[in-house]
Amino acid sequence: MKTPNPARRSEQSRRAILTAAFDLVAETGYAKLTIEAIAARAGVGKQTIYRWWPSKGAVFVEAVLSMGGGEGQDLSLPDTGDLGADLRQVLRAIVDEYNDPRLEAMSRALNLELLQDPSMNTEITERVMGPHLEATKERLRSAQRAGQVAADADLDVAVELLYGPVYHRWMLRTAPLTHAYADTLVEFALGALRPA
Amino acid sequence: MKTPNPARRSEQSRRAILTAAFDLVAETGYAKLTIEAIAARAGVGKQTIYRWWPSKGAVFVEAVLSMGGGEGQDLSLPDTGDLGADLRQVLRAIVDEYNDPRLEAMSRALNLELLQDPSMNTEITERVMGPHLEATKERLRSAQRAGQVAADADLDVAVELLYGPVYHRWMLRTAPLTHAYADTLVEFALGALRPA
Repeated sequence: MKTPNPARRSEQSRRAILTAAFDLVAETGYAKLTIEAIAARAGVGKQTIYRWWPSKGAVFVEAVLSMGGGEGQDLSLPDTGDLGADLRQVLRAIVDEYNDPRLEAMSRALNLELLQDPSMNTEITERVMGPHLEATKERLRSAQRAGQVAADADLDVAVELLYGPVYHRWMLRTAPLTHAYADTLVEFALGALRPA
Repeated sequence: MKTPNPARRSEQSRRAILTAAFDLVAETGYAKLTIEAIAARAGVGKQTIYRWWPSKGAVFVEAVLSMGGGEGQDLSLPDTGDLGADLRQVLRAIVDEYNDPRLEAMSRALNLELLQDPSMNTEITERVMGPHLEATKERLRSAQRAGQVAADADLDVAVELLYGPVYHRWMLRTAPLTHAYADTLVEFALGALRPA
């Protein structure tokens, strides 16, 4: 009979906890997420969770990261040389994510956490959002080198020109998020960034 | 001795309730706002509040509106003929609002309500945000007539190009909200909207 491997068992518990947190948010919403519910769903004791994470928010952010949402992942954008085509692909994918109920629930939960717990703010921004924004900036830098984007364009703001409107429309639900909308945004962004 | 005027007393209670709701959010945050606390602060019974509003969210939205935040107010943008100057003035004012702790608390509360209570969504979007967005569109229509904005530009998206990035930066706290930032956004938007 083999001796159990503690490191492996620990990794299994960790994954069960993160999956449970992610699934519970998708099913019942972030407001009803508790450490108790995560523990029950994952089949572990509450103490196991508290040993690794200080709060439900921390578990949830880690769950999002483990699903491929941020740091440690290859988030680089396509770079075919056609900036418009590459950005359309990315923006359409983001629109699809917001229209997916499961990912929408996750996004809703992250934003609630941002508004309610300022201490989670740095964590979410740096670990989840930051890597995405940086990857987009890198694509724009490549376009700048190719002479497709003005040399003096502020790329931090340029990135917000792409993602800010989608986010605004999603939060306020002013109108549907469609591929046509994504394409219009890219068209506007290209016009804004075009060299003089 | 005069008979008390019920309509006037009722209006005084209404104003006291709205002011109390607004002040409490600014002082302690939206999470701690309760109908009990509003009643105590306004010096009215809970029943008086429930007679007019179904929830704390409804009281709060009404409080925001009564402070000049939406429908029924003249929200029209300056129209000097210089689109860039007019938009810079508006965007700088919005940046100032986000940097004002009292107005920032209000905005935070509105956004929490948006995420937590879908039934408030239409209310907030239509009554608070809608009139602002419509006023901005009207200014862009005027610029379109003056030939400063492309005739086929989608003005619903154009408005989001101005407000979306500010909102994104405020929510995610990725970088400071400054007048220079407001000016850069206007510059980008003008480039995006320019006639071919």
